Amino acid sequence: MEISFVYDIPTKVFFGNDVEALGEQVSCYGKKALLIYDGEHVKKSGLFDKILKQLEKNKIEMLEFRDIRPNPRHTDINKGAELCRARQIDVLIAVGGGSVIDSAKAIGSAYYYDGNCWDIISGKVPHCRCLPIIAVSTISATGSEMDNGAVITNEETKEKRVLAGQELYPVAAFMEPKLTYTVSKRQTACGVADIIAHVLEEYFTPHTGLTIVDSVMEGLIRTMLTYGPLAVEQPENYEARANMMWSAAWAINGFVSLDRSHNWSMHPLGHELSAYYDLTHGITLAIVMPRWLKYIKDDQSLPLFRKLGLYAFMLDPNLSSESMAIEVICQLENLFYQRLELPSSLRELNINDEHFEEMADKLCEDEGCLNGYRRLNKTDILTIYRQCL
Amino acid sequence: MEISFVYDIPTKVFFGNDVEALGEQVSCYGKKALLIYDGEHVKKSGLFDKILKQLEKNKIEMLEFRDIRPNPRHTDINKGAELCRARQIDVLIAVGGGSVIDSAKAIGSAYYYDGNCWDIISGKVPHCRCLPIIAVSTISATGSEMDNGAVITNEETKEKRVLAGQELYPVAAFMEPKLTYTVSKRQTACGVADIIAHVLEEYFTPHTGLTIVDSVMEGLIRTMLTYGPLAVEQPENYEARANMMWSAAWAINGFVSLDRSHNWSMHPLGHELSAYYDLTHGITLAIVMPRWLKYIKDDQSLPLFRKLGLYAFMLDPNLSSESMAIEVICQLENLFYQRLELPSSLRELNINDEHFEEMADKLCEDEGCLNGYRRLNKTDILTIYRQCL
Repeated sequence: MEISFVYDIPTKVFFGNDVEALGEQVSCYGKKALLIYDGEHVKKSGLFDKILKQLEKNKIEMLEFRDIRPNPRHTDINKGAELCRARQIDVLIAVGGGSVIDSAKAIGSAYYYDGNCWDIISGKVPHCRCLPIIAVSTISATGSEMDNGAVITNEETKEKRVLAGQELYPVAAFMEPKLTYTVSKRQTACGVADIIAHVLEEYFTPHTGLTIVDSVMEGLIRTMLTYGPLAVEQPENYEARANMMWSAAWAINGFVSLDRSHNWSMHPLGHELSAYYDLTHGITLAIVMPRWLKYIKDDQSLPLFRKLGLYAFMLDPNLSSESMAIEVICQLENLFYQRLELPSSLRELNINDEHFEEMADKLCEDEGCLNGYRRLNKTDILTIYRQCL
Repeated sequence: MEISFVYDIPTKVFFGNDVEALGEQVSCYGKKALLIYDGEHVKKSGLFDKILKQLEKNKIEMLEFRDIRPNPRHTDINKGAELCRARQIDVLIAVGGGSVIDSAKAIGSAYYYDGNCWDIISGKVPHCRCLPIIAVSTISATGSEMDNGAVITNEETKEKRVLAGQELYPVAAFMEPKLTYTVSKRQTACGVADIIAHVLEEYFTPHTGLTIVDSVMEGLIRTMLTYGPLAVEQPENYEARANMMWSAAWAINGFVSLDRSHNWSMHPLGHELSAYYDLTHGITLAIVMPRWLKYIKDDQSLPLFRKLGLYAFMLDPNLSSESMAIEVICQLENLFYQRLELPSSLRELNINDEHFEEMADKLCEDEGCLNGYRRLNKTDILTIYRQCL
């Protein structure tokens, strides 16, 4: 099987050293910046003042945009894009986690489209340009600070869609592990689930070829098994926070998907839950993941479970592949539901099967949505959702 | 220990698909290209004609430069730079392995300096600009196609020096595994030794922090242990050639050195041998590496040997660290001298200790040269060289 890809991850990363070089980086792209952020924590932590100082020093004019909610809405994106056009913004500074950085990507794209941004997010209208984005990551989870995608929700239609394109990679990303010391236990745990989910989506796809790509994935899982719980239990453990930060970026920046299909099958199951119940992304993934893994475990995927068991979970090579797969899933369940204290079922969140049919129909409508390791049909989706109850 | 680095690997890689997008890429940087290559094999294989077609299609004017020898000489670099200035070249296309691509980097830098290029290579005169380079890799070894360094020799003074800088990263690299099918068994074996050496130089350094960087290194070694011998024994094994190609790039493009010191201590020992005896880089490394590993094995490095044994060589966790270190070195010796059939000693190459004193003095003069895992003094260097006899 021949391998063919273009490797092009253009984001320049400033790891450590706080936001020292921010002003200089912003200057490369213009003189008028929109600062996008979502909460008081950016002000309370002193980060806001540091950024302000950087911008003043480099004579950057700055406007603020704070209309960001978790699971960002397309209506807010429209507002942001309008503001950018009205005030002739040159560059976006996104300070936060996935919601903020994803919003910046959607705003930067919508800036070049003079209509409802949902047209480009839903794929009705093509897009190929985006305002330059400089990301300051304050939570290790989605990896949006170094990837080319954004997830936006349409509240009216209860749809959650992915906007993707080479132009969406931030031009620069600031990753300072200490900025994540104040991330709550729950949010940190959700980040761990998110990072592991990004890796496993790619791992369980056919036609792999470059073992070094597999090694990176196995290394990412091993890193999260070690440092994920540590970051939750010791919020100021530098090594744990640093490892989580770098892993979040590499789980999704494009490296691990180089030699394989880009279609995912676990995330859409989670996205649909978020769209209906406004749940944190990581929580939906922690609930769905073990059920999804059990469901896709078959003769085709067993060798992958074995490899994962050997190189990421360091299991005894004498175990059978079947036992290894069971042990991998069991260890993940223990990680999520015991050590990270994440909810283990939908019932715990007072969610019943009321909307399952509707959600499954929506997922089946969206053609490209469930083309991962194996195509899940409506019955499959319903079965997995029911197992999540 | 805090971690601080700037991640900026700008090379865009076209993996597979031959040189399909070459013309388009060259056009991004100008209309006049210098094609640098070193041998008939580029013409015989049909690659030259394919490149020509790409350039014609995109109306690129092309000049040829073929004065490249293995262990490239600074006198040839001067010639190349002069030609570029005289003919107002916009972009360099380097087709070959390390010698060719390194030459392009030195020529592209010397282009901006109106004197003897050795001034900038030896560090006497600073440099910060380079003509854009598009690399077409025909051998998997040095990784020059995706890194920021070039090694150039001064024949008169018998010095071999490294030119390095962010501006030396090729703007684009074409990696087509099939182009390496015709690389000889010996050259392929040398490439394996080179790739492993690049990884181990970085692995055996103190103050690591990001485990995912370690995982990449362990994955690269594991990949080379599997696919290195396979590429030698089955030259047209696509999977082996593809894995070697991607590993060569990632062993040295900067990723694995992100969180550690950049100073190397094994390569200078090899470079000095090449400078005196015009030996292939990989051969010097295969001879030096096991001796160097035995020499640096001590209480400080033992935990690293253990990690390497566990995750790259998949050794039994019940082994003591000492036994694991011995087993790692033993397996490398078997790989190089048995399976890859590389020379196991200097004596085999009719080299005696005649110049050892002189070489050791040269290495000690060059301050930054031996600051790797531990500082090697003249006695250390002489001991290692004598063990190579």
